[in-house]
Amino acid sequence: MQAGAGQVEELCITGGTVLTMDEAGSLIPDGALLIRQGRIAYCGPTAALPPAADSTRRVLRARGGLIMPGLINAHTHAAMTLMRGLADDLPLDTWLNEHIFPAEKNLTPQAVYWGAMLGCLEMIRSGITAFCDMYLFARQVARAADDAGLRAVLGEVLYDFDSPSYGQIDNGLALTRDFIAELAPHPRLSAAVMPHALYTCSRGLMERAGALSAETGACLDIHLAENREETAQVQKMWGARPLAVLEDLGLVNERLWIDHGVDLNQAEIERLAQAGARVAHCPESNMKLASGVAPLPAMLAAGVKVGLGTDGCASNNDQDLFGEMDSCAKLAKAANLDPTAAPAEAVVGLCTSRGAVAFGLPGELGVLRPGALADVIVLDTDRPHLTPMYNPLSHLVYAARGSDVVHTVCHGRVLMAEGVVEVMDQEEVVAKARQQAMALTGREVL
Amino acid sequence: MQAGAGQVEELCITGGTVLTMDEAGSLIPDGALLIRQGRIAYCGPTAALPPAADSTRRVLRARGGLIMPGLINAHTHAAMTLMRGLADDLPLDTWLNEHIFPAEKNLTPQAVYWGAMLGCLEMIRSGITAFCDMYLFARQVARAADDAGLRAVLGEVLYDFDSPSYGQIDNGLALTRDFIAELAPHPRLSAAVMPHALYTCSRGLMERAGALSAETGACLDIHLAENREETAQVQKMWGARPLAVLEDLGLVNERLWIDHGVDLNQAEIERLAQAGARVAHCPESNMKLASGVAPLPAMLAAGVKVGLGTDGCASNNDQDLFGEMDSCAKLAKAANLDPTAAPAEAVVGLCTSRGAVAFGLPGELGVLRPGALADVIVLDTDRPHLTPMYNPLSHLVYAARGSDVVHTVCHGRVLMAEGVVEVMDQEEVVAKARQQAMALTGREVL
Ligand SMILES: [Zn+2]
Ligand SMILES: [Zn+2]
Repeated sequence: MQAGAGQVEELCITGGTVLTMDEAGSLIPDGALLIRQGRIAYCGPTAALPPAADSTRRVLRARGGLIMPGLINAHTHAAMTLMRGLADDLPLDTWLNEHIFPAEKNLTPQAVYWGAMLGCLEMIRSGITAFCDMYLFARQVARAADDAGLRAVLGEVLYDFDSPSYGQIDNGLALTRDFIAELAPHPRLSAAVMPHALYTCSRGLMERAGALSAETGACLDIHLAENREETAQVQKMWGARPLAVLEDLGLVNERLWIDHGVDLNQAEIERLAQAGARVAHCPESNMKLASGVAPLPAMLAAGVKVGLGTDGCASNNDQDLFGEMDSCAKLAKAANLDPTAAPAEAVVGLCTSRGAVAFGLPGELGVLRPGALADVIVLDTDRPHLTPMYNPLSHLVYAARGSDVVHTVCHGRVLMAEGVVEVMDQEEVVAKARQQAMALTGREVL
Repeated sequence: MQAGAGQVEELCITGGTVLTMDEAGSLIPDGALLIRQGRIAYCGPTAALPPAADSTRRVLRARGGLIMPGLINAHTHAAMTLMRGLADDLPLDTWLNEHIFPAEKNLTPQAVYWGAMLGCLEMIRSGITAFCDMYLFARQVARAADDAGLRAVLGEVLYDFDSPSYGQIDNGLALTRDFIAELAPHPRLSAAVMPHALYTCSRGLMERAGALSAETGACLDIHLAENREETAQVQKMWGARPLAVLEDLGLVNERLWIDHGVDLNQAEIERLAQAGARVAHCPESNMKLASGVAPLPAMLAAGVKVGLGTDGCASNNDQDLFGEMDSCAKLAKAANLDPTAAPAEAVVGLCTSRGAVAFGLPGELGVLRPGALADVIVLDTDRPHLTPMYNPLSHLVYAARGSDVVHTVCHGRVLMAEGVVEVMDQEEVVAKARQQAMALTGREVL
């Protein structure tokens, strides 16, 4: 694993409005951060910034922009950038069986690495500093996340049919066990147990996955309750609704991390809240695949640990949480016919302070305060589409885009400064990903 | 009115994939356009581009990007950039009566000019070359659109209470009559009759507005059927559903241009199609204000002349039709639980070829072919979030953003080249708009 290239003893970010995302919602005008050893050492007015402890201090200027926590992507498949726009606007079974699954059968470690690098590049450019990822060849995703300097929870996707990555499920479970142990000492990466879904995993697999999660303390991440068809299928296969199946397996606890959670009833929402389970809400994927609308206001009211996820690029088709926040807020209003549903402050919280709770780092991530992890982004707000700015939270949800991010810092390391990514060769990543996409799909790309 | 600063005898755009948006959906690899006197003179392979007729030929390089028609914004209030994010996430009556209307009472010609300039700047930057605008002090919006070099249909908003712009309604109708005549000779601008809505306009006003539209041949643009509450209110005030009221007034014809059209039943949709009336579909505004979901698939199936509109920045909060296309496609899928609803090609059509029909320039606008108006944009597609590109139409809807536009040309004039706006001083516009916003609202802005 690569050492921290670009790491400096002290990093400062100066001269911006600091959106702390603390409980009081504090804003610091003309504020600054001092960062040492991956954590925030000072968060306050630029004028009171402590003097440099040594000569290696690096300074990133915010120039009156917004300094805020890096965004947390609660669910994605980063390597699926290779399938961005491969097939859209199709019935689900055609899309999966005729386009996505056939391409995934051709996956190689190289394809996953370069696809994940492209995903990481896109996330860095759009201000995402932490993500949760389920995919094949997960060690390659870990290698990409490490090279990219991002924070991540990663897992090898498990199912009962043969995997192009590990072959038979016994190997998949062994790989997962090793992977969890390998990443345990890493400062930014960790692994989880990731059975794909109840309609692709047998009872035996689920029981072994649950036991591995209990034994290691790692999360168990699963696509669940994505749409009504899934519920019907699970009821047919398992004889109960998806969450009841997990309950029966003893998996509804604080290690549970469910992706989508669209088809949930009120009792299920309350059970998730009471158990301390996490939900990755993926509104754009749910809209594009016509999965339905997740009960976000009810989940927030019940106190469920909700984060916001982009899902993979085959069903979004980007890794931009700014667009996702916009869709999240607007979809909740439209679906509930209530313009007060999912207000901007709550939605920004899903990607920052509240998202950190779902990510398993409450109070450490998603908030700017001394002692917190130094995952920070800066937006240039001196742009026409962000003028005037009465309220930064409103702009973050309803007007900003990933392309407004100018600096991205993760664990105290500068990943992008002044719009230039420092941790990889962007042109190389784009070119290699394009090659891998053509090899995977047998299609020419523009 | 300003002469064509930056106009050259010949303009070429070379070396990109030309998305013609013609009926066959033709794509021209390594294509080019030659533009003379505001129209396209050549559209074909770069290799076959006719040689320069004189020495003033200017060349914009597409560098392998996408060359496509400029986008058409079917409904906005450009000057409302001044109220971007002023108030969000509120019940409609609070939002309107406590925030938007009080601010609009303070409007001045200067405020509208600079707000509209900011709106035009934002549209140029995000690839919109034509828009339809209803607002107070519409002559100032015309001045801004003219200075910005954009194409527009403009109108003074009419209602029965006193207007900060024209005072009593008699003046408003007289102003509209003069405005239509003044703009008639303009190559890019025209005016329409724009009563605000049935709940703010009396029968007398609507009759006079309809007579003016019939006499001049100008369109009659009105907010209509925006939500169920409007229908209930109109039924109470007028004794019929909104479209039936217009029918009774004799206004359902090909000059009719309705904004929103959310609460329409199947008979009303068929009537609109049969009459050749236009509908501006504004999905993001409808979502944010919880107005409901317009019946887009039914309108498309019936053959209604539908365009896509951003609506004003108080209810969107940007002027970016790329984001709007994404929301349009995804909302239609979510609302109809059908992943095949509003496919990418149809949605791009709403902003180009089909949008041009709604805009009143079918075949002349929204399509790249010899003889068509030279409203053209170029996107840089060599970016991480647009890699790989299997299908340009998919990317335009699901992955591109306004910030991917690098060149914007309207009526043969270069408005933006290489991301630099040439027709106005961007910093001045941003600063002046910020000042006007503070004066209007009495609020500090960041
Ligand atoms: Zn997923
Ligand atoms: Zn409007």
